[in-house]
Amino acid sequence: MQRNLFTEDHEAFRALARDFIEKEVVPAYPEWEKGGRMPRDVFKQMGELGMLGMAIPEEYGGAGIDDYRYNVVLQEEAARALVTLSTVRTQLEVILPYFLHYANEEQRQRWFPGLAAGTLLTAVAMTEPGTGSDLAGMRTTAVRDGDEYVLNGAKTFITGGIQADLVVVVARTSTDPDNRRKGLTLLVVEDGMAGFERGRELEKMGCKVQDTAELSFTDVRVPVANVLGEEGEAFSYLGHNLAQERLTVAVGSVAQARSAIAAAIGYTKDRKAFGQPVASFQNTKFELAACSTEVEAAQAMLDRAVALHVDGELSGADAARVKLFCTEMQARVIDRCLQLFGGYGYMMEYPIARLYTDARVARIYAGTSEVMKVIIAKSLGL
Amino acid sequence: MQRNLFTEDHEAFRALARDFIEKEVVPAYPEWEKGGRMPRDVFKQMGELGMLGMAIPEEYGGAGIDDYRYNVVLQEEAARALVTLSTVRTQLEVILPYFLHYANEEQRQRWFPGLAAGTLLTAVAMTEPGTGSDLAGMRTTAVRDGDEYVLNGAKTFITGGIQADLVVVVARTSTDPDNRRKGLTLLVVEDGMAGFERGRELEKMGCKVQDTAELSFTDVRVPVANVLGEEGEAFSYLGHNLAQERLTVAVGSVAQARSAIAAAIGYTKDRKAFGQPVASFQNTKFELAACSTEVEAAQAMLDRAVALHVDGELSGADAARVKLFCTEMQARVIDRCLQLFGGYGYMMEYPIARLYTDARVARIYAGTSEVMKVIIAKSLGL
Amino acid sequence: MQRNLFTEDHEAFRALARDFIEKEVVPAYPEWEKGGRMPRDVFKQMGELGMLGMAIPEEYGGAGIDDYRYNVVLQEEAARALVTLSTVRTQLEVILPYFLHYANEEQRQRWFPGLAAGTLLTAVAMTEPGTGSDLAGMRTTAVRDGDEYVLNGAKTFITGGIQADLVVVVARTSTDPDNRRKGLTLLVVEDGMAGFERGRELEKMGCKVQDTAELSFTDVRVPVANVLGEEGEAFSYLGHNLAQERLTVAVGSVAQARSAIAAAIGYTKDRKAFGQPVASFQNTKFELAACSTEVEAAQAMLDRAVALHVDGELSGADAARVKLFCTEMQARVIDRCLQLFGGYGYMMEYPIARLYTDARVARIYAGTSEVMKVIIAKSLGL
Amino acid sequence: MQRNLFTEDHEAFRALARDFIEKEVVPAYPEWEKGGRMPRDVFKQMGELGMLGMAIPEEYGGAGIDDYRYNVVLQEEAARALVTLSTVRTQLEVILPYFLHYANEEQRQRWFPGLAAGTLLTAVAMTEPGTGSDLAGMRTTAVRDGDEYVLNGAKTFITGGIQADLVVVVARTSTDPDNRRKGLTLLVVEDGMAGFERGRELEKMGCKVQDTAELSFTDVRVPVANVLGEEGEAFSYLGHNLAQERLTVAVGSVAQARSAIAAAIGYTKDRKAFGQPVASFQNTKFELAACSTEVEAAQAMLDRAVALHVDGELSGADAARVKLFCTEMQARVIDRCLQLFGGYGYMMEYPIARLYTDARVARIYAGTSEVMKVIIAKSLGL
Repeated sequence: MQRNLFTEDHEAFRALARDFIEKEVVPAYPEWEKGGRMPRDVFKQMGELGMLGMAIPEEYGGAGIDDYRYNVVLQEEAARALVTLSTVRTQLEVILPYFLHYANEEQRQRWFPGLAAGTLLTAVAMTEPGTGSDLAGMRTTAVRDGDEYVLNGAKTFITGGIQADLVVVVARTSTDPDNRRKGLTLLVVEDGMAGFERGRELEKMGCKVQDTAELSFTDVRVPVANVLGEEGEAFSYLGHNLAQERLTVAVGSVAQARSAIAAAIGYTKDRKAFGQPVASFQNTKFELAACSTEVEAAQAMLDRAVALHVDGELSGADAARVKLFCTEMQARVIDRCLQLFGGYGYMMEYPIARLYTDARVARIYAGTSEVMKVIIAKSLGL
Repeated sequence: MQRNLFTEDHEAFRALARDFIEKEVVPAYPEWEKGGRMPRDVFKQMGELGMLGMAIPEEYGGAGIDDYRYNVVLQEEAARALVTLSTVRTQLEVILPYFLHYANEEQRQRWFPGLAAGTLLTAVAMTEPGTGSDLAGMRTTAVRDGDEYVLNGAKTFITGGIQADLVVVVARTSTDPDNRRKGLTLLVVEDGMAGFERGRELEKMGCKVQDTAELSFTDVRVPVANVLGEEGEAFSYLGHNLAQERLTVAVGSVAQARSAIAAAIGYTKDRKAFGQPVASFQNTKFELAACSTEVEAAQAMLDRAVALHVDGELSGADAARVKLFCTEMQARVIDRCLQLFGGYGYMMEYPIARLYTDARVARIYAGTSEVMKVIIAKSLGL
Repeated sequence: MQRNLFTEDHEAFRALARDFIEKEVVPAYPEWEKGGRMPRDVFKQMGELGMLGMAIPEEYGGAGIDDYRYNVVLQEEAARALVTLSTVRTQLEVILPYFLHYANEEQRQRWFPGLAAGTLLTAVAMTEPGTGSDLAGMRTTAVRDGDEYVLNGAKTFITGGIQADLVVVVARTSTDPDNRRKGLTLLVVEDGMAGFERGRELEKMGCKVQDTAELSFTDVRVPVANVLGEEGEAFSYLGHNLAQERLTVAVGSVAQARSAIAAAIGYTKDRKAFGQPVASFQNTKFELAACSTEVEAAQAMLDRAVALHVDGELSGADAARVKLFCTEMQARVIDRCLQLFGGYGYMMEYPIARLYTDARVARIYAGTSEVMKVIIAKSLGL
Repeated sequence: MQRNLFTEDHEAFRALARDFIEKEVVPAYPEWEKGGRMPRDVFKQMGELGMLGMAIPEEYGGAGIDDYRYNVVLQEEAARALVTLSTVRTQLEVILPYFLHYANEEQRQRWFPGLAAGTLLTAVAMTEPGTGSDLAGMRTTAVRDGDEYVLNGAKTFITGGIQADLVVVVARTSTDPDNRRKGLTLLVVEDGMAGFERGRELEKMGCKVQDTAELSFTDVRVPVANVLGEEGEAFSYLGHNLAQERLTVAVGSVAQARSAIAAAIGYTKDRKAFGQPVASFQNTKFELAACSTEVEAAQAMLDRAVALHVDGELSGADAARVKLFCTEMQARVIDRCLQLFGGYGYMMEYPIARLYTDARVARIYAGTSEVMKVIIAKSLGL
């Protein structure tokens, strides 16, 4: 269904992204999958092309255009080419907003140029072993000592944790038992700080071109100058960006589901079974028609949500609905498309298998489908 | 999710419709259900309020505003009040377009005032016993004899067939075997014409406030002046309005699903089970959250399609996608909502039971889900 | 899949039942649907043929064969012929067990001959307006006064309540607040007792050949001789038969789903669309293959459960699983089969429409799907 | 639900298998996953314990008990321990039957002792690149030349192809165009024969402890003494064992789904979210109750089918139904269970992730779900 989300500027950016992905990402992708990450110099290339600094003010090396739709375009083009851009998504859509909203002038000068250039890679460390995403139960602590905080704790499921130069760590700076949500602070830990250790790299089902790691902090002395925003305000900071984080997942889900359909159409037209193209069977047609219908519904919902988000009017409950619908749709659609590949769908050399294993996490991260339902139910007065 | 489809004018019309429905429809509805139709004087009331003639040019007694969104509003308000407006939907959204597009000046003068006033009720007679919606197999014939056509044949599944003053009959005027699609013509048969008989009124599972009938035509002499449009062109005429017919079904599906959720929220908050409100169970919350999510996805898709339709840019395949998605969504959502009513959901005095039995036809009429998939698959190049 | 549940005796009974249903039920069924019940003389005919007294001891006019599989056969044959046997199912499978297990000798002599002969029709009155199936909240009371109980209260959703000669009423005979489950007693209220009023007959979505009624009891004086079992023991009595009640629903669900498939196969082979039999489309084949697969799974599960039940070894949790699975399967299968009928599937003259509206209650009565899940979860240690 | 499939002998075998798996398989499994196969000496251990030769006649070193239920037990115990036994399943349930039914006396003496001892590993090479499982299109040829066949062709998706000592190759020995199914012959190619090359080992989504390979045959001279059964009869041989192959997949599906539920129950009882065990949420309970219900339905269906198979009475269509139902059930159940693990479900160190990726192939191999539907539809007369 004809979309109405993008302007000519977005389409120009799309052409740039498509070209870059085709030339620089697609050929190297199988290699990156084996290595488990995208090489640092590719981040730099993206930085040079202006793909990482769109939202960063011009005075710090960016383009000064804080328009979420550029992120949408980037994800769509990656999905179109059946790849992902590793942790770029997390960096641009999850972490960068914290820097943009809460960094002070000194921090801006220190970090923004590197973020725009692709020389500073980032991660956010929130989840802890055992407590999951329940912020109230967080046990990592940062105790003020002069001009420094002494940070202790362990984090897990950290996307990009191995490669990150800057890790935004959520730590407890006050242990007031009456308000377990207050007292959380964002500290930027830098690569090389004593006591900051990268732990195991976790082996995931999919998403092979981005590392997921455990991190540990033992008496890491973090300068007060590395606090992002105000001490004790992390809880509200984290909540503020949640809608975008969820939208971001949905953008990927829709784009990848769409890509799965295109791949399945191509495959079933080529492949023969019982003497005729698989695409000529009514079952194939109906499956793909059903998939296409679901994708278009999701796309319409998502595009409307993105438009609202750009206008600052997307509610948390609607973001939850969009994430819930789009990720569940993605699961259904990619599963059905994979089935049309027969045995080849199970072989990792076919991108459909990668789409399938990548997809499984979408219903889990940035809040599970169950958490989304909790949020939505509340908005219904239940 | 916040919508962007309507202007203040639509909202003013909505207020009018809501008021009318609450006062004139809701209290009488149970009575109409028993009688199987909406009384003729209610059509007249609606005509007087300007609800039937929005799209009819002012010189013939209408408002001259051919904006599909008024139809959307009308359906939404009916669904909101848990009723339907009988054959008004068919008249305004399926049949009136034929008159608007193909009636000549003489016919406009003859029929438009009555259509706007609610004194002329209409039906369209397309489906035949045994051939279904396959126009190529149509066997009703109209043979030219001087200034008249002699019409013979039988039609079935005619919505509003019993009450109709004017029946738009699709008949075969040429039997050229090389082109079975050409040679179909629209003839307006009027109440009282000799040989025009209303047959059985069919008992349906739901949709109790509109009749569905068999009609028969035995040597009915229809004046040539009653041909709508050109002889032999009916096939393309019928195709031209299909997208709107399907959109129309989808509008009802989404509005009714939304209404089912509202009813279920109300019921489960009041009703207790095992000592606590049914709404307080996590299962209830999650079911309703899931339903709400589906409705919002459908609404976004539908609103986008309506906007495209208003601009004349909705493709047939996209209309098919919208119908497929919205009607299947309606079925899932209403079924889940009904379940939350327990035994009461099975009792016809609860509107949820009516919504359930009404809903089952949506996946069938105006083209079954299977026909939609055929259309969509073609658009995918399959 | 080849079954192994029945012996030659069951098959002989099946032949008898099939013959009776074809001759006496099928032709009259549309009439019964209009009237909302099966005539009393048909119950008598069934009594004379020995179909109502299989489980009743020979000395009271029965066959003395208390084998649940005869009930299975009866339901299967009714479903096969696309009818139901009205309240016979409730009488034989839900209510008769209370009489068989708890009637004393005097009561046996008084009631068993009539139950076997089909001259005494029964109902069980448990559910109350507002409290549903929560026995602990039951408000109907029976206060001992000499040789009588004075019964006061209101009941609803009483299957067969209008026709019943004997109504087994669950009433509270003790109001000890410490044990709200104790203190429930079964009283047999007889037609004609002063103060026993039949209230409204409720209009249901389906199940049109059995009445569902509201009953009220105002100072009804019930002789102590009409207490079934021990005073205060009803709660355990009711629990004891629950597994069979749920199995009974599942038996109907599987048999009706099977019947829907047979009807759809017949219809789609006859019916043409786009010039070829509907049965020849791959979608039709795949839909029916999927339906057939689901029915066979359900049948295997059910047959195993029936065999365990006959041996007295079916657990309550397994009965819940069987009901949950078979009724949800029934809903899916009948919905898919109906879709293959196109517009005809929505017309009540086609039995598939009746199967559809009948089916909706199966996930609700005898414990909703949600209640089944509660029971099953407990058995998993959750 | 209480099962009735096994005797004491099976249970004794179960105890043996359980013990072996716990001690020898579970601890080493992560290592095997990295290596992509089970070491040869473990096959030997199993041979020594009598686990590979149950069905092989005693005179050749087996136990002479050809009872399919021992295979069921072996799969169930592996699944119970959240592992697989690599290619043992294929060897025992897919390939061994060809040897048992078609090997002549000389071949029995040559190969049976090694098969029983676990020193001869096997594979069957049927599928070819491009033609899939369509036997009629097979292009591998074997041309008779004196006492040998000259074999040429390529095979793919060969389970165990890398480790196999004996590969049963399906080759075309006659090119009569009138009967493309006749003329297929089974040839046993031995490790080391000139011209027999192992090609790429294919990287699969799951099933990591068994290799899947491409094989090529270039002028391989296979002695006539290595023909299994009669020349030209392979098509019927292959068809003969299909029901068992499909049953075998279903056995694994049910056992693994059951195991997923047990894992999810364990995990959700331990794991806390928002201060309470995940198992205490109603959603968790309902999800697991629904999963348990599906597994019990599948188990009942499967057990009935196994009993029929043991008696030689399982039809091909019923085997197809069982495979279709059990594999689709497996997919649904494991997906729902994984969701309850949250982020941990996506990590390969949790067996649920392995169950998930292993499961995806079950709907594909041994005939896709679509092929099953074709077979079932035929049996319905469609």
